[in-house]
Amino acid sequence: MMPDSPQMCLNLFLSVAGYHAGAWRRPDSRVEELTTLGRTAEIVRQAEDAKLDAVFIADLLGWHDNDFGKHPRMHPLEPITTLAALAGLTERIGLIGTVSTSYTEPYNLARYFASLDHLSGGRAGWNIVTSYGGGEQFGRDREPHDERYARATEYLEVVCALWDSWDADAVVNDRAGGTWARADRIHRIDHAGPYYQVAGPLNIPRSPQGRPVFAQAGSSEAGMAFGSTFGDVIFTAQPDLASARRFRETFRGRVRVRGRDPGSVKVLPGLMPIIGPSERAARELADEIADAIDYPSAVRALEWVLGDLGLADRDPDGPLPVELLKPPEEFDGGRTRYEILYRLAVHERYTIRELLRYRARAAGHHPVIGTAGQVAEEMIEWFDGGAADGFNLLVPHLPGGLDAITGELVPILRERGYFRAEYAGTTLREHLGLDVPGPAGRDDAGRPDRASSRSTFVKGI
Amino acid sequence: MMPDSPQMCLNLFLSVAGYHAGAWRRPDSRVEELTTLGRTAEIVRQAEDAKLDAVFIADLLGWHDNDFGKHPRMHPLEPITTLAALAGLTERIGLIGTVSTSYTEPYNLARYFASLDHLSGGRAGWNIVTSYGGGEQFGRDREPHDERYARATEYLEVVCALWDSWDADAVVNDRAGGTWARADRIHRIDHAGPYYQVAGPLNIPRSPQGRPVFAQAGSSEAGMAFGSTFGDVIFTAQPDLASARRFRETFRGRVRVRGRDPGSVKVLPGLMPIIGPSERAARELADEIADAIDYPSAVRALEWVLGDLGLADRDPDGPLPVELLKPPEEFDGGRTRYEILYRLAVHERYTIRELLRYRARAAGHHPVIGTAGQVAEEMIEWFDGGAADGFNLLVPHLPGGLDAITGELVPILRERGYFRAEYAGTTLREHLGLDVPGPAGRDDAGRPDRASSRSTFVKGI
Ligand SMILES: Cc1cc2nc3c(=O)[nH]c(=O)nc-3n(C[C@H](O)[C@H](O)[C@H](O)COP(=O)(O)O)c2cc1C
Ligand SMILES: Cc1cc2nc3c(=O)[nH]c(=O)nc-3n(C[C@H](O)[C@H](O)[C@H](O)COP(=O)(O)O)c2cc1C
Repeated sequence: MMPDSPQMCLNLFLSVAGYHAGAWRRPDSRVEELTTLGRTAEIVRQAEDAKLDAVFIADLLGWHDNDFGKHPRMHPLEPITTLAALAGLTERIGLIGTVSTSYTEPYNLARYFASLDHLSGGRAGWNIVTSYGGGEQFGRDREPHDERYARATEYLEVVCALWDSWDADAVVNDRAGGTWARADRIHRIDHAGPYYQVAGPLNIPRSPQGRPVFAQAGSSEAGMAFGSTFGDVIFTAQPDLASARRFRETFRGRVRVRGRDPGSVKVLPGLMPIIGPSERAARELADEIADAIDYPSAVRALEWVLGDLGLADRDPDGPLPVELLKPPEEFDGGRTRYEILYRLAVHERYTIRELLRYRARAAGHHPVIGTAGQVAEEMIEWFDGGAADGFNLLVPHLPGGLDAITGELVPILRERGYFRAEYAGTTLREHLGLDVPGPAGRDDAGRPDRASSRSTFVKGI
Repeated sequence: MMPDSPQMCLNLFLSVAGYHAGAWRRPDSRVEELTTLGRTAEIVRQAEDAKLDAVFIADLLGWHDNDFGKHPRMHPLEPITTLAALAGLTERIGLIGTVSTSYTEPYNLARYFASLDHLSGGRAGWNIVTSYGGGEQFGRDREPHDERYARATEYLEVVCALWDSWDADAVVNDRAGGTWARADRIHRIDHAGPYYQVAGPLNIPRSPQGRPVFAQAGSSEAGMAFGSTFGDVIFTAQPDLASARRFRETFRGRVRVRGRDPGSVKVLPGLMPIIGPSERAARELADEIADAIDYPSAVRALEWVLGDLGLADRDPDGPLPVELLKPPEEFDGGRTRYEILYRLAVHERYTIRELLRYRARAAGHHPVIGTAGQVAEEMIEWFDGGAADGFNLLVPHLPGGLDAITGELVPILRERGYFRAEYAGTTLREHLGLDVPGPAGRDDAGRPDRASSRSTFVKGI
C-alpha cells in the first residue's frame, strides 16, 4: 500500500440497464426500472460505497430511434433533475451532468448548477457540450462547428461572472443589524457580447464549490482549445494506450500554453471492463451480450454515426462500402470516435457485423475483457504510462458488471495503492484533488480574490 | 367526522426562514440553513407528515435587493432542482414549482417536468408564470403584458404535444423481440407557430401523471383567460371572504365557458395563520414579528410594487402620497395584490408604516391572527362559503409557525372532517381529486385517447 502515491480518478458513466447495446435484454437487467429514481439511486450508492469520484449522466437533445429508443444504454431522464434527486440520496459522490451551451439560457444554467452545488454540498459537475444536433428542438438553424465553440466561450464568461457575482462572505445572517446579505459583497454584472446580453448578479448565493467542476470532451481543434481553457476533467474515447498517451500529452501541452497547471486537469479515457472469473469466461460473457444485439437497430445506430451507407441491404459478414465513408477531417461531430470506426473499417477491414458489434459494445471506448486482475493491470499500465489520470467507467451490463467493478476491480486497485479507501473531503473538487476556491474568495485587502476562485479567464466585472 | 364530505386542498408555500419579512431575525429562525437541502427537506417532510397536498416553490428571475436579498422569505434556490432533490426525500407530497414561459425553452421545460414527474412517481406540478421582469437576464426586451400570455398559450401547446408524444404503452421492454419501445407509439411533432418551432417527440417516456399538474396565478384579464384554459390549481391573493368568493365565482364561470368542469379547478387563496395559545398571544406574536422588520428595506420592498414614491424621506406615521399612485387599471404586474395595497392606502388611509407592515407580513395574502381553532373556523367559513377550494398556506415564522399549522391547525380541520387523515393515492393529481389520465392513455380501438389525458385544448398532432 502506498497511500501517498498518485491516485486514479474513477468516474461512473451512468447507465441503468447497461451500456452495452445488448445488455438490457439480459433476464436480470431490471430494464423495467429504467426511469425510476429508486434503481438509479441504488446504482449510484453502490458507486459511492466503492468511493468513486463521481457519477456522470450524458445527454443528447433529440430522440434517436436507433441510438436511444432501441437501446436504453443511456440514462433516459434529464441530467440536472436526476442529479438533484441523487443529491439527497447520496453523501459524497460527485454528480456530473451534461448540459448544452447551445440551447440553454446561461442565466438559467447558472442557477441550475448553483442550486445543485448547494443541494449536494459541493458535489456538482457540468459536462459542457456544444451539441452537434438539437436545432430542430429549438427552432434554430444548426450553427457551424467552430461557431458553437465561440458561443460556448462567451457562455462560460457569462456563467462564471454570474457564479462570481456573490462573494463567499456576502451572506452574513446579521439578525441584530437586519442584514441578511451584504449589498457590497454582491456584484452587478452587465455582460454584453456578440451572443449574450445578461444582467446580474445571480439570485442565488455563492455555492460551496463556487462553481461546478467543468468536464469536457471536445476532440476537434476548437474543442480542445475550449477544453484546455476551461476543463477540469477531460473525457475522451481512445482505442489503445499509445493513442491515449499521445492525446494526454498533446492536451497537457495545450493546458500549459494557457498558463494553467496540467496537474489540475484530469484526462479520463473511457473504459469498459468485461469481467469474468477467467479470461475465457469473460470472452464468453462478451460474446453472449453481443449476441443479444438487435441487428437492424444496431445497423441504424452505426449509420447514425457513419452516414447512410445502405448497410441493411448488404451482407452482414461482408466488408463495408469504405469508398462511401467521409474522410475523418470532413466529419462534423464526435470526431475521435468516428476516426476509430473509420480506421477499423478501412485499415482493419472489419466486416459490417464486426464493426457494429464493436460499436454496440462500448461505442468507441476502450473495452477490456478479462479477469478483474487483468483489467486492473491494464488500467495501472495506462495510468503509470502517462495515458490516463483515471478512467470513465462504462458498465457493460447490470447488475453483474457493476458488481464486478465495485466488488472486484476497485478493491484490487485499492490494494495496489492506486485508489482511495475513503473519501478525504466532501466536495467533488476535493475528490479530484483540484484547487478549492478559498472559502472567503477574497484577497488580504478584502477585495474579491478572482485568482483564488480560478476564474482568471473571466473578464473583470 | 364526515369522511366523504368535501375536502380542502392544502398547499404549503415553501419558505425556509419564514414568509413574514421580520421572521428570519428571530433567534430560532435557522436562517443559517437557508440554502441547505437538509433544512428544506425537514420542513417539507413535516408538511408531508401532516398529509398536505403539495409544497410550492415560488420564483423570481432577477435579484431584488429589497424583496429577496434583504428578506430571505422566499426559497433562495432554483425550484426545479430543489423539487427534484425533495423527490427522493419525500414519498407522497406534491412538488409544485414556478418556471417562466418567457425565458425557458419549451423543449427543456418539457424535459425538466417529465423527469421530475418520473423521479417523484407522479408528484410534479408547474406554476406557470409569464414573469413581469426578467428581460435583462436574458438579453430580451420586456414583452407587453398580453403578448406574454399569447406566447404562453403557444408554449402550452408545444409542451403538451411533447408530453403526449409518447403513448403510455410505448415502452414494452420486450427482451425476446428486441424492442424496448414501440416506434408506432412514439409520435413525431413538428410545431411551427409564431413564437416557437419545435420538433419532437420528447426524448423521455411518458411520465406517471402524463404531464405535471398546472398551477397558475394570473389575475389580469389575459391571465384569467389563460388560467381558466389550462389551470388545475389557481393561486390567488384575496383580502377577505367576499372578494375571494367573487373571484372564485368569476373564475369558475370562465372555466365553464371553456367547456371544462369547474370542479376540476381548485382555487386556493393565500392564507397566513399567525397562531397563539390565545387571541391576545397571537396578536402579540404578530406585533413582535412585525417589530423585527428593517424599516429601510421594507420601504424599498413596498416601492418595488408601488413605484418610487420617495417614502424613505417621509414621516413613517404619516399618509402615503396617494396622488402619485398609478390607478390599478394602469398597473402592469401582479394586479390583485397591487389593488389591495392601493385600496388600503387610498380608501383605508393606512400610514406608510401600517402599509409596509401589512405588506411585510403576508405581501397581500390574507392574514388570520388567533388561536388554531379560530383560524380553522375562518378557513371553514371560506370553504363552506364558496370562497375557496382550499388554501395556499404562508408560514409566518419557523419553526413555531409551522409547528402550529401541522400540530394544531391541521388536526382541527381533520377532526372537523375537512381534511384527510391519510393520502388516498400516490400522485398529486390524486391528492387534488383531479382526473388522472388513463394508465394506457388509449381508447377502446387502441388509438391514443387524447381526451383521457385531458389535452383537449392541444391541437391535434
Ligand atoms: C465520455 C464522453 C461523453 C460524452 N458525452 C456527451 C453528451 O452527454 N452529450 C453530447 O452531446 N456529447 C457528448 N460527448 C461528445 C463530446 O462532448 C463532443 O461533443 C464530441 O466529442 C465532439 O466534439 P468536437 O466537436 O470538439 O469534436 C461525449 C464524449 C465523450 C468522449
Ligand atoms: C400565491 C402566488 C404565487 C405566485 N408566485 C409567483 C412566482 O413564483 N413567480 C412569479 O413571477 N409570479 C408569481 N405570482 C404572480 C402571478 O403568477 C402573476 O404573475 C401575477 O399575478 C400577475 O398576473 P397578471 O399579469 O395576470 O395580473 C404569484 C402569485 C400568487 C398569488
